[in-house]
Amino acid sequence: MSHIVEILSVGTELLLGNIVNLDAQILSQGLSELGLNVYYHTVVGDNPQRAKEAVAVAKKRADIIITTGGLGPTCDDLTKNVLAEAFGKELYLDAHSAELIRGYFERTGRLHAMTDNNLQQAMLPEGCEVLDNDWGTAPGCAFYAEGCHVIMLPGPPSECRAMFQYRAAPYLEKLSEGIIASHTIKMFGIGESQMEAQIRDKMNAMTNPTLAPYAKTGECELRVTAKASTAEEAERLLAPTVEDMVAHFGAKVYGVDVSSLEEVVLAQLTLQGKTLGVAESCTGGLMATRMTDMAGASRGFVGGIVSYTNEIKAKILGVPQTILDEFGAVSAPVAGAMAEGARRVLDCDIALSATGVAGPDKDDRGNDVGTVFVAIATEEGTHVRRLNLGTQRGRVRISAAHNAFDLARRYLTDLPYEDGVV
Amino acid sequence: MSHIVEILSVGTELLLGNIVNLDAQILSQGLSELGLNVYYHTVVGDNPQRAKEAVAVAKKRADIIITTGGLGPTCDDLTKNVLAEAFGKELYLDAHSAELIRGYFERTGRLHAMTDNNLQQAMLPEGCEVLDNDWGTAPGCAFYAEGCHVIMLPGPPSECRAMFQYRAAPYLEKLSEGIIASHTIKMFGIGESQMEAQIRDKMNAMTNPTLAPYAKTGECELRVTAKASTAEEAERLLAPTVEDMVAHFGAKVYGVDVSSLEEVVLAQLTLQGKTLGVAESCTGGLMATRMTDMAGASRGFVGGIVSYTNEIKAKILGVPQTILDEFGAVSAPVAGAMAEGARRVLDCDIALSATGVAGPDKDDRGNDVGTVFVAIATEEGTHVRRLNLGTQRGRVRISAAHNAFDLARRYLTDLPYEDGVV
Repeated sequence: MSHIVEILSVGTELLLGNIVNLDAQILSQGLSELGLNVYYHTVVGDNPQRAKEAVAVAKKRADIIITTGGLGPTCDDLTKNVLAEAFGKELYLDAHSAELIRGYFERTGRLHAMTDNNLQQAMLPEGCEVLDNDWGTAPGCAFYAEGCHVIMLPGPPSECRAMFQYRAAPYLEKLSEGIIASHTIKMFGIGESQMEAQIRDKMNAMTNPTLAPYAKTGECELRVTAKASTAEEAERLLAPTVEDMVAHFGAKVYGVDVSSLEEVVLAQLTLQGKTLGVAESCTGGLMATRMTDMAGASRGFVGGIVSYTNEIKAKILGVPQTILDEFGAVSAPVAGAMAEGARRVLDCDIALSATGVAGPDKDDRGNDVGTVFVAIATEEGTHVRRLNLGTQRGRVRISAAHNAFDLARRYLTDLPYEDGVV
Repeated sequence: MSHIVEILSVGTELLLGNIVNLDAQILSQGLSELGLNVYYHTVVGDNPQRAKEAVAVAKKRADIIITTGGLGPTCDDLTKNVLAEAFGKELYLDAHSAELIRGYFERTGRLHAMTDNNLQQAMLPEGCEVLDNDWGTAPGCAFYAEGCHVIMLPGPPSECRAMFQYRAAPYLEKLSEGIIASHTIKMFGIGESQMEAQIRDKMNAMTNPTLAPYAKTGECELRVTAKASTAEEAERLLAPTVEDMVAHFGAKVYGVDVSSLEEVVLAQLTLQGKTLGVAESCTGGLMATRMTDMAGASRGFVGGIVSYTNEIKAKILGVPQTILDEFGAVSAPVAGAMAEGARRVLDCDIALSATGVAGPDKDDRGNDVGTVFVAIATEEGTHVRRLNLGTQRGRVRISAAHNAFDLARRYLTDLPYEDGVV
């Protein structure tokens, strides 16, 4: 029999819109990977009557109910009471959980702040399997009753994620009839609709594996997903399609199962023992931030200059004043000179630059919002890419950085700088 | 009679965890502000039978159903069919909507890409109020039947947000008996639990307005919310509590209804005609990025140096090699010299710096992850703040930037640099 999962989140803060239901997404991803079908998400507030009714609805239409939230120490936290009652169970004080809660307070140096309410968290439905929470105080639990598996997980997303992965998933794996595995092909330089158009017939004809396109800001990805009884079998199903797609999209593919262009750039820099620096105007530090967001950035990244004024472009990067005067700050010659200047003053192998109009207004020379030049300077010379990136400030900045990283990726992997850039 | 709202989102991508249910959060926030009670969120996939059953559940427990998603041009998009059927209505081709859809394709230069499927989007339930979509192609609609208000909105969050604000909210305002208004007091330099402990008794005793604390990475906020029949009355209820809280937390309050420390810094720079520059090591460009994320950044921000290596600290910022050798890059003297160097080379009134160990590993001198020094240099001298920011790389970087901006805010508003920093 194929199982049907309902995720039931309990928390008034979700209904007020104070937080987004990240738990439901985390659990849905994890359950899909286990090959379990999630058919419903429900959210109710911290209200026992409505929570009870929601459980009654879930019991009728699903045979695995996973709750998130409402396991905390305050009187708002009612999930265990409601679920125990719905399945005719009593709560008992679990001594082991009480000990773990005390240990958590001790470990985090807050034993003085522990109250009786915290021990309330150790009250669990009789006959349940206790899911120890090593990431917070509220233990989770799982039980099977009346033809239904019930799993309760804490609400804070970091706890929910860890508790699912290390506690709930092992319990659920036994219930799944197979696994779902996927690979994600990351592309830059092609729009989602264009990508989709090229593979639509193929996509529609496929059943296992399946192909699904996704758009992200300024880039897109193609997920290949297979269902199989073992990981090895899934891999055998996936491999030919992944190869096929990578071959089809060629240089636009910057990686499979990688997270970003800058990750690929840093990996290549590390591999080749090369260094990168940046000179940023419209991106205003975003390129440097994205490089240094990655642990191990110092293996290839040396630093950058954020030259938000012409004075800094001239004084620190050494962009000739004559070029600034003649072409304006948003121009190919200035982008090129910024990259060359950064390479010189930062003393690095490769320098990237970006200058453009992020908006909301045109620049003083009347360049439209979204006009951006990115450049790369290397020992082999300088290359400038001209772009028009739309009118949204955030998007202009992100896409400009993507494009600069794409130049670095292409340089480092011996690909031509330009082919069908979007 | 008080209304009960259910938000029903339709989309398999939500159940697979490919996207988070941002629409539910957007609508919940907007509905709360209108004084309408959201009691349930439900998500179902692109499956007519299950969607129909979910509508039946919603009809029983709510009298306002707002759907998101499933209005697109493909056969997956079933929301209108299901809702029309549930309320015994036929669909008709709305000529006005068809015209708008054609216009949208024309305006975005994609008329060649328009297909018959797109006109499918103009099929609407008879007798409905059409909600024109100026932000995409799928029109929304609203109708009242069988004691229930039904409003259908498109799924893409940017469209959903705009359609709610400009189309659904005016329709719903007529149904609300009052409004909810709130002010958010933003604080830096106090932990959430400490803030909560100081006001817990007061918080628990209040009913209208109410006080709610929220934690954000490295900072926290206090939301004061009142329910009233008019905006003026809500404001009268809110003002004394806001004043009281601002007075209580003093210099830790950096603003009311502002979005971030850097917003306050930029506003003060603009007001006072002063300029800011940054020198960043562990924050790696984050301070510059956060400044330039704001439109109008150039009114106060000139640029920055990301000095990820000692060579750049020495060569570009002029940090004396002797100081680097004696104290190491992660030290108070280097932080001070970086800020002073940035002020000099960037030629600005105020310079901020950050140097520290973002992790994952200790630095070569054995400084723990999370050891950070931030500094401010002004015409009145230099001040360094020493911090220990925990072990999570992302959090260390964000908190370091918060602290640097806090120094600038305190300088610009004549507050002492240090009091009870966390």
